[in-house]
Amino acid sequence: MNNNLTRRLKAKSGLNSLTLDDVLMNKKLASLGDAFVNFVYSIALSEKLGEPVGAKIKSQILADALRKSGLRRRLPSRTDRHTQGDAAEALIVYAWLQGILTLSEAIQIIEEKAEEPVEAFTTLLTQIEKHLAAA
Amino acid sequence: MNNNLTRRLKAKSGLNSLTLDDVLMNKKLASLGDAFVNFVYSIALSEKLGEPVGAKIKSQILADALRKSGLRRRLPSRTDRHTQGDAAEALIVYAWLQGILTLSEAIQIIEEKAEEPVEAFTTLLTQIEKHLAAA
Repeated sequence: MNNNLTRRLKAKSGLNSLTLDDVLMNKKLASLGDAFVNFVYSIALSEKLGEPVGAKIKSQILADALRKSGLRRRLPSRTDRHTQGDAAEALIVYAWLQGILTLSEAIQIIEEKAEEPVEAFTTLLTQIEKHLAAA
Repeated sequence: MNNNLTRRLKAKSGLNSLTLDDVLMNKKLASLGDAFVNFVYSIALSEKLGEPVGAKIKSQILADALRKSGLRRRLPSRTDRHTQGDAAEALIVYAWLQGILTLSEAIQIIEEKAEEPVEAFTTLLTQIEKHLAAA
């Protein structure tokens, strides 16, 4: 589905030539990733609760998940928590744009541990990294 | 796609029994709708620009779109702009949850007029209302 959705974005933006380190430091991807992550988390939480709810994931949660997934060490050691959160957002939406995971898969992973968001996003980031390492 | 995504949410939340007026005043739907609308607008704008970007739609824009679509008059006359924006968000995500429009269709409609967001959301709301009126 996302192949059609984001056809023009992918054709123009040169996403295919980015390395993992480029992705983690890409502020434009982080900006789009923020909207993506909040949407995925809101749907996952709504599914879990059985009623509609909107929620925002804090940088702190994503920074913790980045560390637990082992991806934190790819960033410079003095990188602040907010920038670590941005890195997680950038990687998650990159994975979606590249077809590494579908929206439905992302929601399912988060929903399984929606009440422990650090664990949920750690699982998501770990799966994305595995896909990238295998590619 | 959204049929699977939101299976449990729909089964539990009683969305099917809501009238249009119920939907417009539903704060829980508005809360989820905020995340949905920002995601759709961010993807549409990213597609338009050919590079990733995250963006938030202001209540004012959605309130204007609600008025232009003719749906404003379904709300009490003293309803403030923020509540009008909430009504638009609630209706848009309701339409997606109910399968009235797909994520891909929503993005396409917004992308066509992404630089005139009031027009873009007016078109989206008008299409949703037409579907509901025909149902």
